[in-house]
Amino acid sequence: MLVICSVVDGTNWNQVRENSMSDLKSMILEMGNRARQASRKVATMEPGHKNTALQEMADLLRTETPTIVAENAKDLAAAEENGLTSAMVDRLRLDEKRIDAMARAVEEIAALPDPVGEMENIRVRPNGLRLGHVRAPIGVIGFIYESRPNVTSDAAALCLKSGNAVILRGGKEAIHSNMAISAVLARAVEKAGVPEGAIQIVPTIDRDAVGHLLSMKEYIDLMIPRGGKSLIERITRDSQIPVIKHLDGNCTVYVDEFADLDMAVPIIVNAKVQRPGVCNAAETLLVHSKVAEKFLPAAAATLMEKGVELRGCKRTVKIVTKAKPATEEDWYTEYLDLILAVRVIDTFEEAVDFINHYGSHHTEAIITDSHTRAMAFLRAIDSSCVHINCSTRFADGGEYGMGAEIGISTDKLHARGPMGLRELTTAKWVVFGNGQVRG
Amino acid sequence: MLVICSVVDGTNWNQVRENSMSDLKSMILEMGNRARQASRKVATMEPGHKNTALQEMADLLRTETPTIVAENAKDLAAAEENGLTSAMVDRLRLDEKRIDAMARAVEEIAALPDPVGEMENIRVRPNGLRLGHVRAPIGVIGFIYESRPNVTSDAAALCLKSGNAVILRGGKEAIHSNMAISAVLARAVEKAGVPEGAIQIVPTIDRDAVGHLLSMKEYIDLMIPRGGKSLIERITRDSQIPVIKHLDGNCTVYVDEFADLDMAVPIIVNAKVQRPGVCNAAETLLVHSKVAEKFLPAAAATLMEKGVELRGCKRTVKIVTKAKPATEEDWYTEYLDLILAVRVIDTFEEAVDFINHYGSHHTEAIITDSHTRAMAFLRAIDSSCVHINCSTRFADGGEYGMGAEIGISTDKLHARGPMGLRELTTAKWVVFGNGQVRG
Repeated sequence: MLVICSVVDGTNWNQVRENSMSDLKSMILEMGNRARQASRKVATMEPGHKNTALQEMADLLRTETPTIVAENAKDLAAAEENGLTSAMVDRLRLDEKRIDAMARAVEEIAALPDPVGEMENIRVRPNGLRLGHVRAPIGVIGFIYESRPNVTSDAAALCLKSGNAVILRGGKEAIHSNMAISAVLARAVEKAGVPEGAIQIVPTIDRDAVGHLLSMKEYIDLMIPRGGKSLIERITRDSQIPVIKHLDGNCTVYVDEFADLDMAVPIIVNAKVQRPGVCNAAETLLVHSKVAEKFLPAAAATLMEKGVELRGCKRTVKIVTKAKPATEEDWYTEYLDLILAVRVIDTFEEAVDFINHYGSHHTEAIITDSHTRAMAFLRAIDSSCVHINCSTRFADGGEYGMGAEIGISTDKLHARGPMGLRELTTAKWVVFGNGQVRG
Repeated sequence: MLVICSVVDGTNWNQVRENSMSDLKSMILEMGNRARQASRKVATMEPGHKNTALQEMADLLRTETPTIVAENAKDLAAAEENGLTSAMVDRLRLDEKRIDAMARAVEEIAALPDPVGEMENIRVRPNGLRLGHVRAPIGVIGFIYESRPNVTSDAAALCLKSGNAVILRGGKEAIHSNMAISAVLARAVEKAGVPEGAIQIVPTIDRDAVGHLLSMKEYIDLMIPRGGKSLIERITRDSQIPVIKHLDGNCTVYVDEFADLDMAVPIIVNAKVQRPGVCNAAETLLVHSKVAEKFLPAAAATLMEKGVELRGCKRTVKIVTKAKPATEEDWYTEYLDLILAVRVIDTFEEAVDFINHYGSHHTEAIITDSHTRAMAFLRAIDSSCVHINCSTRFADGGEYGMGAEIGISTDKLHARGPMGLRELTTAKWVVFGNGQVRG
């Protein structure tokens, strides 16, 4: 079967035989090779040049709105045909306003400081060597995502600004939208003199393409998967390339015995209900037994008023009779919905052990007025983000003041938590000498 | 077949049936579980407590010198039986002086600043949140090495000081020495109240043990392999756990057309001959054609006087008639010996492209008095360490002022170049609030 794909980046792959493994593999390999070549050039582009290219991207997204909307309509039609929920269809939909927001996001990334070339901790050694770190692009990023189409332009802009080449692979539901957006971006950067191959998208929904990407360790330096658990697990299992995962957020708020309970209620309510479908929303509430009888009725009343279903341990259910009994499974679950697991614990240590065991190491908050407890929580909790006396919902690149993020890493290495421009770079060592040799 | 293994860390694995896959797997799983439990406790130990344990380690290494020497004798006997070269046997040998040096290395690690808990870049957001990074242990490190037995105590000390639990897996040539050292270290730290399981060694040379280690992603956070290419390749291929590789150093010195040639000669000589068997020794010399006729005869004379064999491109061989002709393979080769590949190039860009293509991304040096060239080299070279007007031999944790190192990473993510205490930690986000919720 011959499938004619759109030309997405000015190359001559007019025809991609999806059924031919070897053709698919050569195409992906060729994408990798072009990305590697491009990455060497993008790495040394001046900030002003990259910003001009980003402005071209924003401008062309606006100019090409009708094309993108037309391609998006194909995805919407397929989505309705395939019975996606109206919420999912809405997430997929692009219109002039949403495309303008994408363009503005690209402009905001252009306005951020350029991390490439920043020098850090340059020190002087006794022999006169000046040495320290200099930030450099990672090289080629493989970004696999199952998200709204706007992520395509966000990711392309973040990678270009940080001096990396990127190979994008979006979800099949958004293939027409993503390819239209990528084609626009590739045309824009080409106009600005960015090397061909700096921004590419895999032009097929064939799942084997992902396997080929994951094997190209000579061409791709880092894989960033962002999506559902099964996608992330497949990529972690099969990748020959380092992976930084963007996995689930089973976040906990712990109300300590020394909590200011008037502060604790609005924080758990905000953490649960302000936007329940995102990874930094709270899924579990732990309450110290010394304050449970006072705190839980007040918290439960407000939460239930906002439509939250509570699933509690035995002691919770005794205090809040409207709560359903929780199962073991509940403590592991990221609901992404107006449901909250609630558990009464007897000691601070029990709270810490519970979180490190059942949590997903994303974001946890403690509500306490004890300085000792706050600092002990910070040390003991093995999560990307540890919040003291504030909502888990702040775990976000924008809220942290980093600007746009490519995702929130749930891994420990290289980047933990929100991953912005700086996290898309690495640190090389630089040594400035004037003739030193080692004795 | 039943093989009785030593009890290396106070547990009751007296018998390990090496031929039984499932027993081996359960033993490795149990090691992982104990390491994970221990890591939670080690992570929150105070610096003073860790330093006491490190001092116990140093003291007991000295006290138990006769035991270690006796076990080492078994490895030496086996080595001679297996026909290892006398240089290899010498590397393996432990005596009182060498064990004292191991103890001193542990004391030096104790004296380094503790990275755990250091806060960085704490900033204030408009809503009053104070947030930034706090350094935290990685968790459980799996360290697989084929090195001298002293690496066992270095690695154990570095991991403990940085708040991590470690599972060690040494080379089969040193199994008795490594197990004796680990047993001593485990006893020392137990005496100091460090949780059982913080320092463990795999008590068998069965290769399947490595496979089991590499699959335990719930128990091990990071694998650090240090050894030959085939070991590293196997681990990278099979690991389900993030890996930071310590691979080869095919390092290049580039003598630019604007080089001070009187500076260039001692630098290339030092980079090649001061210690040819290590990863930061130079393996290739690139010379700009504008200075080749002046520079090469002088450099070649000194190098050959020191016993260096030169393998040159056609133009090199014309200038230095005693040089042998180089093959394509030579440009890729890490000799670790008194051999140097030499190539004349016509442009700066050619030098950069050559290094990024043939090099191993470890350490490269440029000799130039052009500021423009120096800074362009720094930007364009995709290596862990970029040296300007000094020897490649300085690429080392000690020379960089970091103290001891667990190795020199040739990976790009998390740690690039010498990997010391700081690189054995990760950065969590901390957010200090006083009741903030997201609007």
